[in-house]
Amino acid sequence: MSQLFVRTLREDPADAEVTSHRLLVRAGYIRRQAPGVFAWLPLGLRVRAKIERVIREEMAAAGAQEVLFPALLPREPYEATGRWEEYGDGIFRLKDRKGADYLLAPTHEEVFTLLVKDLYSSYKDLPLTIFQIQDKYRDEARPRAGLLRGREFSMKDAYSFDYTDAGLDVSYQAQRDAYERIFTRLGLDYVIVQADAGAMGGSRSEEFLHPTPIGEDTFVRSASGYAANVEAYTTPVPEALPIEGLAEAVIHDTPNTPTIATLVDVANVVEPRTDRAWEAADTLKNVVLALTHLDGSRELVIVAVPGDREVDLKRAEVAFAPAEVEPATEADFEKNPLLVKGYIGPWSPTGAVLGEESATGIRYLGDPRVVDGTSWITGANADGKHVFGLVAGRDFGFDGTVEIAEVRAGDPAPDGSGPVELARGMEIGHVFQLGRKYADALDLKVLDENGKLVTVTMGSYGIGVTRILAAIAEATADDRGLLWPRGIAPFDVHVVATGKDEVAFSLAASLAAELEAQRFEVLYDDRPKVSPGVKFGDAELLGVPTIVIVGRGAADGLVELWDRRTNERTEVPAADLVERFTASLA
Amino acid sequence: MSQLFVRTLREDPADAEVTSHRLLVRAGYIRRQAPGVFAWLPLGLRVRAKIERVIREEMAAAGAQEVLFPALLPREPYEATGRWEEYGDGIFRLKDRKGADYLLAPTHEEVFTLLVKDLYSSYKDLPLTIFQIQDKYRDEARPRAGLLRGREFSMKDAYSFDYTDAGLDVSYQAQRDAYERIFTRLGLDYVIVQADAGAMGGSRSEEFLHPTPIGEDTFVRSASGYAANVEAYTTPVPEALPIEGLAEAVIHDTPNTPTIATLVDVANVVEPRTDRAWEAADTLKNVVLALTHLDGSRELVIVAVPGDREVDLKRAEVAFAPAEVEPATEADFEKNPLLVKGYIGPWSPTGAVLGEESATGIRYLGDPRVVDGTSWITGANADGKHVFGLVAGRDFGFDGTVEIAEVRAGDPAPDGSGPVELARGMEIGHVFQLGRKYADALDLKVLDENGKLVTVTMGSYGIGVTRILAAIAEATADDRGLLWPRGIAPFDVHVVATGKDEVAFSLAASLAAELEAQRFEVLYDDRPKVSPGVKFGDAELLGVPTIVIVGRGAADGLVELWDRRTNERTEVPAADLVERFTASLA
Repeated sequence: MSQLFVRTLREDPADAEVTSHRLLVRAGYIRRQAPGVFAWLPLGLRVRAKIERVIREEMAAAGAQEVLFPALLPREPYEATGRWEEYGDGIFRLKDRKGADYLLAPTHEEVFTLLVKDLYSSYKDLPLTIFQIQDKYRDEARPRAGLLRGREFSMKDAYSFDYTDAGLDVSYQAQRDAYERIFTRLGLDYVIVQADAGAMGGSRSEEFLHPTPIGEDTFVRSASGYAANVEAYTTPVPEALPIEGLAEAVIHDTPNTPTIATLVDVANVVEPRTDRAWEAADTLKNVVLALTHLDGSRELVIVAVPGDREVDLKRAEVAFAPAEVEPATEADFEKNPLLVKGYIGPWSPTGAVLGEESATGIRYLGDPRVVDGTSWITGANADGKHVFGLVAGRDFGFDGTVEIAEVRAGDPAPDGSGPVELARGMEIGHVFQLGRKYADALDLKVLDENGKLVTVTMGSYGIGVTRILAAIAEATADDRGLLWPRGIAPFDVHVVATGKDEVAFSLAASLAAELEAQRFEVLYDDRPKVSPGVKFGDAELLGVPTIVIVGRGAADGLVELWDRRTNERTEVPAADLVERFTASLA
Repeated sequence: MSQLFVRTLREDPADAEVTSHRLLVRAGYIRRQAPGVFAWLPLGLRVRAKIERVIREEMAAAGAQEVLFPALLPREPYEATGRWEEYGDGIFRLKDRKGADYLLAPTHEEVFTLLVKDLYSSYKDLPLTIFQIQDKYRDEARPRAGLLRGREFSMKDAYSFDYTDAGLDVSYQAQRDAYERIFTRLGLDYVIVQADAGAMGGSRSEEFLHPTPIGEDTFVRSASGYAANVEAYTTPVPEALPIEGLAEAVIHDTPNTPTIATLVDVANVVEPRTDRAWEAADTLKNVVLALTHLDGSRELVIVAVPGDREVDLKRAEVAFAPAEVEPATEADFEKNPLLVKGYIGPWSPTGAVLGEESATGIRYLGDPRVVDGTSWITGANADGKHVFGLVAGRDFGFDGTVEIAEVRAGDPAPDGSGPVELARGMEIGHVFQLGRKYADALDLKVLDENGKLVTVTMGSYGIGVTRILAAIAEATADDRGLLWPRGIAPFDVHVVATGKDEVAFSLAASLAAELEAQRFEVLYDDRPKVSPGVKFGDAELLGVPTIVIVGRGAADGLVELWDRRTNERTEVPAADLVERFTASLA
């Protein structure tokens, strides 16, 4: 400890928002170099190396081979797949002295694809899964939470290559299984949720989320095993209802009802129900969104959701990807006088009908719950007017359905496994079936059994190495400091010599040597003029799970074995220490 | 081998200039991604990891602690030391989304200095040596020779921190010793040469050069141990000669003598010597150089060297660093009419005397061999005229001496150890005493024993990890392929099953398993339909030092042990293989 390049801090760093950031800086594991960019000190690097070792072992067990790509890559492959533009401001771009374009790679699908294309040409070469552990760069708009959302971070990214869909399923499952083993070995709780592939394209996609209140993702899960990112939740479609016998729709004057709440109040006055009062869920809310497509063009769409639900813009982004989504602006309304703000609806006395027979030329998309036979109070496309008893499938239809309504606790799981609850999670791993998107764009084909060229199908599998280090720190820390699980702690045991008695220091040194001889990694706090209080505080902050105190009892051959987790201290004879410590690991 | 992600190539890559580049690509160790930027395939990565392990072990033995910095770093620290500008086009610069300046670090002195400043404050914390193994970036004007001069490369860079000069000497020596152990373990020949610190500043500086004809550096060495980079060679200064009794200088018309050779011819006609003919070494050549200083200003200097030597511009660059040096241009001569091209000299009938009493305002610097009492034929600063018998110390003097004359085989070593020879070398390591340059610029001070703030003194120690991998490949390869030293070969043994006989394949598989059980790393060529010729060719190309052939003799329990280096093949009973192989390692 007197030699170790570390200094603990009493004060939290000013910019630290989360526990892991706070403690990793205070305990001298990392230091900030720039927003979202960190240097690793010896303690941090030791933990990082141990996590990498676990990942490498499980990758090898899954048959994946390690390679290594540079961070600096030329523009061309990313241009070919469209991602050079798609990433927008989210990546670091630069030019070399000759003016050629480069990027600091945020992920490596393109160059892995090209490498396999360079080496392989036959179905006999497949399946193949290759991976790297490598530093990646993303120019986050708001780097924060220390290692959890940095601009430089280490990732294990693996890519699988198959020539059949069934092969891809096998490769995908092998990585998925490896991820389960990795997180289990690291002692990191996880939930596998269905995810939307988003910008990565492809078909099957699951995220490994670590449940934590500081997670950036919201996910839903049922008691019986269903779990999905809210963006991937699909609404169970109710049975259609009989239309026959339903009353005609009626238009009512409903002035000053710009919101659902005011509308419900007025509805209960102008046409009260006999069985119960009107509720927000009886109304159909029509919201105008503006999509910005990749080519820069702007398109308005109208989306209909039950009035008791908000439009979830994150779900909307996924539904309309790769377009960007925002609420329509005043300018949009001014250009479209048929859209009467606050009174938009699918049916109209003025002829401004939405949907398949639209007069507006604007796509009209509906929540899956709005099935045929359901009856709604909704806008009449005329100022101050709503229509009551408007029946889907009779009075109006959609150009399509869309998953953009908010998901709420109690909503049914789509697999019938009951109601879902909502939780926050941190993404710690992601497995994707990319399919043929990258192989198509970069022309990766192999000859199949019949000598025919077939396009390769790929998977992409990522684990954030530095992020899971922070996630583990976050999950295991207590109010006294870091508290690493065995196996990834920077040391197996932390021996602390206290007091001024030379006997304690010489006993501590010999115990440290004895433990090292048993191949344990030992941090020995040999600092001569530091008080026991400071030493104990440092030991608690650094987070090695077992601490051995060699102090007053040393003269009598006694030391204390201190379990950092339970905070239990046991006096043991020094002669038994190694045996007792070894036994405590079992 | 049927699973390994590798493909060997029959043809050399078009852009490969050197053996290591050619073979590392052909054997499937690396693949080019951009000029000077490579991806590492499994075989290459295995060798790289083994070299890194050797380096880590020796760094630990030298008491150095490992840390890790990002490649992406902010401008400010490099601005503070002036290197942001000094590097010119030689580094990659970029901006983030907010317009802040960053670079991809070419070396990390600044941020290591700041990290120590952040953590440490007392002499008690020192000495400290910390290192990293990390990917660096330089925007080379002409990336070439594969890994030997790339734009991205892995380096081990260590930095030492002391508060006394004596402490720095100890830290420096510890790294220097570690480097000797590293290169010895890696089997890489090296010569330690005195080097000029150049752009790094500082005092003591030595390079580890690997002698090779493809080296970029020229160095000199004597038979008795002196060795220096030519840029660091210092000319032994001869004794001054008596001036008294020397004849007066005489001006002769010497038209049409723009070169030393023509001058010598004319000299032997207009004033022939009686004892011998005039030679080039009797003339003093005055060369006008233009320096461009960091602030952009341009300065002319005149340098004088014996006429039998050229000005060595690389030595001149070091002598005038950090200014850039080039020969004066026609425009420079036009602006300075006193400089009569081809007839420049220190003394003149027209009064255009150079040196301390200069009429030109231009510094006049001389080779150290031009001591007082030496007599020269040199320019008379008048068109078509030279002066004969011009005596240094009587007729002219210098504003200073300068080491810019070329160094030649046979020149005396400055330490008196006899004549030097010239050789080519490749820089594989560099140890520097930086002194207080960076600590001054970044204000790294500690309190000394007396409570006084003292500036820390630093050393910087670099090894090019990927470069030494290529250097080893270059040094050990033969005309059949790569040929790795044991310890860093990607595998310990390469087992090749040949023929169509199932017996050979099952024997080979069991031998491979047996060797692996003995903790050897085995590459097993299990490819079923590949000819023995192709398998042997691949084995030779991949360069594992021991190959085991399991073929026709398998039915009789016989295999062949093939020493890749000596090309000797020995038939051994399969039952004895492991023992025989183990014995061959001793």
